Amino acid sequence: MHAVCSDLEGVWVPEVWINVSLKTGIEDLKYTTRDIKDYDELMRYRIKILKQHGLKLKDIQNVIATIRPLDGAPEMVSWLKKVTRFIVVSDTFVEFASPLIQQLDWPTLFCHSLVVDEEGNITGYALRQKDSKKKVVQALRSLNYQVIAFGDSYNDISMLQEADNAILYNPPENVVDDYPQFPVIHDYTELKKYLLPHFGTG
Amino acid sequence: MHAVCSDLEGVWVPEVWINVSLKTGIEDLKYTTRDIKDYDELMRYRIKILKQHGLKLKDIQNVIATIRPLDGAPEMVSWLKKVTRFIVVSDTFVEFASPLIQQLDWPTLFCHSLVVDEEGNITGYALRQKDSKKKVVQALRSLNYQVIAFGDSYNDISMLQEADNAILYNPPENVVDDYPQFPVIHDYTELKKYLLPHFGTG
Repeated sequence: MHAVCSDLEGVWVPEVWINVSLKTGIEDLKYTTRDIKDYDELMRYRIKILKQHGLKLKDIQNVIATIRPLDGAPEMVSWLKKVTRFIVVSDTFVEFASPLIQQLDWPTLFCHSLVVDEEGNITGYALRQKDSKKKVVQALRSLNYQVIAFGDSYNDISMLQEADNAILYNPPENVVDDYPQFPVIHDYTELKKYLLPHFGTG
Repeated sequence: MHAVCSDLEGVWVPEVWINVSLKTGIEDLKYTTRDIKDYDELMRYRIKILKQHGLKLKDIQNVIATIRPLDGAPEMVSWLKKVTRFIVVSDTFVEFASPLIQQLDWPTLFCHSLVVDEEGNITGYALRQKDSKKKVVQALRSLNYQVIAFGDSYNDISMLQEADNAILYNPPENVVDDYPQFPVIHDYTELKKYLLPHFGTG
């Protein structure tokens, strides 16, 4: 019996913050962990910028709701929900992910959450736990599932390393160079072809 | 952050084997763990009866596909998928559950699997693991989720005992008598009312 864990951004939907920056016209929101390595620093910076522009959670959710999943993503997610135990594992926040997960017809999502005050302002965030992606794979393995994991970036590596089978899906070149041990797959057709033999009959 | 685990039969769909017995007219398939306490003995008996009647997996799946979810179940499952991390945890087999899970629009299901030969005959079964329901709660707790669990029968008790909050959903009287510590809920409206304050804002 197998289970599949996948990243969200870069695999099923575009990068959220880059799109939020483009759609709101707020340049300062375009930075990612590639620019500010420390995630806590980056998130505190984003929350500060949102506050400066008077943007509440609802405003950001409305912007995120205009982002569309990648071509073919809903169909591929729908297939995975039918043929395996499929969990989306993300370092984003459930409140930001919801408008996108809705467009993927609500697969199960494990991620972090925001702290929002009574007026709807984002005041902070709560990480579910440290090593959150890796721990999901460990949890599924503790349930006797063979875990297949895929993601596109550095924050997926610990999840990939913990899985029985792992794939870099559409990764940037530097990730491929740093982790040559993982097979690289570029589109859903190729991904399905890779997964089918691993699913076997179970 | 919370997660919800629920049983399948008796909570979202009727008892499968009783219905398979009714719909096929095969009396010998109506027995459940209430009649034959040892689960392995019961399953080996069922597989023998299926073989005697020349019934393949596909035949049973066709029968199961005619069973309908309980009134209001698809709507309640749909709501749970949106507002929490929702996992159906069952002691049935993925091959039997699929025609029902499909009618619930494919929530994530953790259960056991059948052994099927090349001709489509059911030749055995593979339990995912011992204490499979309890271990799902432990796995979700290891991911830092507060787990709310509900089920209707004896095989749910270890899951309920492991959860942060637990409910007996529409249980038979003997289960209520044996486990008076769990609140008893009888319909989805009442269930939703119970769950909402537990979800809080997260």
